[in-house]
Amino acid sequence: MKSAKNAISPTRKENYAEWYQQVIRAADLAESSPVRGCMVIKPWGYAIWERMQVVLDSMIKETGHVNAYFPLFIPKSFFEKEAAHVEGFAKECAVVTHSRLVPDGNGRLKPASPLEEPLIVRPTSETIIGESFSRWVQSYRDLPLLINQWANVVRWEMRTRLFLRTSEFLWQEGHTAHASQEEAKAEAMRMLEVYRVFAEEHMAMPVICGQKPESERFPGAVETLAIEAMMQDGKALQAGTSHFLGQNFARACNIQFADPDGKLTHAWTTSWGVSTRLMGGLIMVHSDDDGLVLPPQLAPQQIVILPILHNAEETQTILDYCETLRFRLRAKTYHGQTLRVLVDTRDRRGGEKSWEWIKKGVPIRAEAGARELQSGHVSIVRRDNGQKNLLQINEFVEKAEALLADIQESLFRRAMELRAQKSKRIGTYAEFKEFFQGEGCGFAETFFSFDGEAEEKIRSMGITPRCIPLASNSQTRPCFVHPDRPGQFVIWAKSY
Amino acid sequence: MKSAKNAISPTRKENYAEWYQQVIRAADLAESSPVRGCMVIKPWGYAIWERMQVVLDSMIKETGHVNAYFPLFIPKSFFEKEAAHVEGFAKECAVVTHSRLVPDGNGRLKPASPLEEPLIVRPTSETIIGESFSRWVQSYRDLPLLINQWANVVRWEMRTRLFLRTSEFLWQEGHTAHASQEEAKAEAMRMLEVYRVFAEEHMAMPVICGQKPESERFPGAVETLAIEAMMQDGKALQAGTSHFLGQNFARACNIQFADPDGKLTHAWTTSWGVSTRLMGGLIMVHSDDDGLVLPPQLAPQQIVILPILHNAEETQTILDYCETLRFRLRAKTYHGQTLRVLVDTRDRRGGEKSWEWIKKGVPIRAEAGARELQSGHVSIVRRDNGQKNLLQINEFVEKAEALLADIQESLFRRAMELRAQKSKRIGTYAEFKEFFQGEGCGFAETFFSFDGEAEEKIRSMGITPRCIPLASNSQTRPCFVHPDRPGQFVIWAKSY
Repeated sequence: MKSAKNAISPTRKENYAEWYQQVIRAADLAESSPVRGCMVIKPWGYAIWERMQVVLDSMIKETGHVNAYFPLFIPKSFFEKEAAHVEGFAKECAVVTHSRLVPDGNGRLKPASPLEEPLIVRPTSETIIGESFSRWVQSYRDLPLLINQWANVVRWEMRTRLFLRTSEFLWQEGHTAHASQEEAKAEAMRMLEVYRVFAEEHMAMPVICGQKPESERFPGAVETLAIEAMMQDGKALQAGTSHFLGQNFARACNIQFADPDGKLTHAWTTSWGVSTRLMGGLIMVHSDDDGLVLPPQLAPQQIVILPILHNAEETQTILDYCETLRFRLRAKTYHGQTLRVLVDTRDRRGGEKSWEWIKKGVPIRAEAGARELQSGHVSIVRRDNGQKNLLQINEFVEKAEALLADIQESLFRRAMELRAQKSKRIGTYAEFKEFFQGEGCGFAETFFSFDGEAEEKIRSMGITPRCIPLASNSQTRPCFVHPDRPGQFVIWAKSY
Repeated sequence: MKSAKNAISPTRKENYAEWYQQVIRAADLAESSPVRGCMVIKPWGYAIWERMQVVLDSMIKETGHVNAYFPLFIPKSFFEKEAAHVEGFAKECAVVTHSRLVPDGNGRLKPASPLEEPLIVRPTSETIIGESFSRWVQSYRDLPLLINQWANVVRWEMRTRLFLRTSEFLWQEGHTAHASQEEAKAEAMRMLEVYRVFAEEHMAMPVICGQKPESERFPGAVETLAIEAMMQDGKALQAGTSHFLGQNFARACNIQFADPDGKLTHAWTTSWGVSTRLMGGLIMVHSDDDGLVLPPQLAPQQIVILPILHNAEETQTILDYCETLRFRLRAKTYHGQTLRVLVDTRDRRGGEKSWEWIKKGVPIRAEAGARELQSGHVSIVRRDNGQKNLLQINEFVEKAEALLADIQESLFRRAMELRAQKSKRIGTYAEFKEFFQGEGCGFAETFFSFDGEAEEKIRSMGITPRCIPLASNSQTRPCFVHPDRPGQFVIWAKSY
């Protein structure tokens, strides 16, 4: 089924960054808008995001959290409460200063009615949710407080890229308050695990769970945990973060509780989030030179049935045949849900339709024309590897679930293999430089002493310490820059 | 079960407006935030909104629409394109003018990096979505374009009230483009019907479907259709609107398509929306002097089981009894969904827990203690009418679905009866004045010639023409103000 010529130009090899944009365009996922840095998420892209939301939302609820909604705007004075936080976000925020437009006399409008206090469009909601928490939390009986919010946020990015970095993006942000440090740390860890399971089992995207080094921490956090994924070009994508905030925000927002003895104590808080950035990861991990490749669990349509119609008299019989197939498939489940199956009856050329679904990444295409109908067969093509099979219709209905499971698993395995190929244990600084030479990319696994000067020098090469993997169990070995010092296990990469 | 003293003070009779606020507080639905006019939707309130979203979203998709997402910000120049539209919204909009905060030297922050063009936080998205449509629509083959968006919007309201009128609110906004006027009008009508079904069959809130008079139309619309509901105090609530926009926005945004002959024509567009305002309607239509009353179809929990625990040795047996009941109920369905059942095991006094669920509006409370356990019974209390019944546990499990259906229906019937009581045919202006005298409130059904002066005079009394009901079939009779002129059927009311 693979054609000699690919649907996406340039290919990954020719120009990975441009290939990424072209995959998005070919799958009709999103587009830039005339509003600086903001994107329009188109129906196919939004349908994938909705699948992500449904799965994540249920995982977040199963771990005891409830959804709520807090204001879009944050008063400037709230923002000023936490020094590191404001330092991190003040440089890139949308500021509302007026509440009215009036004619300027030249047939245009100008802002009027200045606000007493400017409002910031939330870049993240610790300070505004903290204000509510300070009222909701009185006694240890009110804890833990486990809240999640689905929302849009704005960070005034200078260089934007669809899904990966946009001025406005969609996300969920969890915010919790606890009576003890241990409990809050455990919460941050629990949510990191939720993200890992989501990334690996639903997105089929392998991730490394780790601690962020100080230089990469969330502004105001004591500890930032993250899941880091490798894209096909060997660059890293921070796909989700979970922060242990200590008592920093509890102090800034005055979240205090009376313990069983009546003593007032500041709560321990966490926050954690994933965003539409995951869409960027999903695209870059699995897609190929023919366009998007979707893992079955997140595909808005898992199977597309394409009737092959050549002459008018057989049309209705073939359409009925396809509709019956859809009906039978819909009675089957995959991963606890009814199969999502579409019959594409649009009046277009078969080849055109077929290529459209290839570019949109639908896991299985099933073609049926006069030939298939006569013998009770259907032609199956897998999107992940292009394998084509002529199957008895009963056999396909019986096998559909297993086939989807196999595609899901293959995508994960393929991504694991690529990551293994592009990861390397690095013992010396010379090896390190060689690894990243020119276009060189991948995960460099080192032991590093977090010497500030060395880190700065490496950063200036566009390479950052991605995380200290949890799996390293805090073991130390000689630092790859200063072998006389003990180093922690650190993964370095270029990143998105 | 009703106590002599009510849970909500003041009662509806004593002070309806204040009663409304107290019901929200007692049910823990939402609260004012320190951000002017913005509210915090608390977990129980948000869970009800999520139920609404799930139902509405599936109805919107079943009618062929797909979800997408468009930017939060609208460039000022877009806003200026449609004269009536800008006139309607310029007076109350949040204007973003800067993209950065910098220290002002006194330890505070001030806005910096002014934008070249101010951005408006969307009050509604016709102009920004229209810009996308102008690129997406080329040929008649691209039509109809049927898009929906779930989003937050901002209108700088001076006098706000939780859910009913807030500066930021949540809603869905549908935007569609069509090849003909007839098709666009039919779309606006179809979505009004979706809203009617949602309001009446899911919210148990009767509504009148009607055409808005010119003075009440959406800025930029050719026709505005609406569903109007009556609250218990006799005031009207506009609960949802559906607009036929003619070619106004297609012209302003340049949405043109080539017809089959290749001729370029402007598309015909519609827009339609419902918002968190529906929460206000839900509260005001059904609640009583003990707090919220939820229709079973939208209740986050439909049945709460309350274990009555008096001494330690029987505790586990009673908890097991309750858990078994929950398990059996969860195997039952109501309206196509698994029953939502909670066992409240919190360590609080039974009376306190019971009152909490009364105030939160849960349709059925099931109490079980030593007495019930011994005889295999459970004590059932209906929230809508306070009726208490001791039922065999098998009987309750069998009847639960019918009981919920009966509550849903009773709430609708009760609201219909109240509306009938508080509606009156009015033939003369004298009768009209008498009807609304003092605190008088309700729906005044008149025939009216839309004389501008008369309308203005009535408006100055705080009474507005709510709609021209579709059911009136455009019949005319003598106007109630100027009997020599033909009048259309018009419903008048004070409104929220």
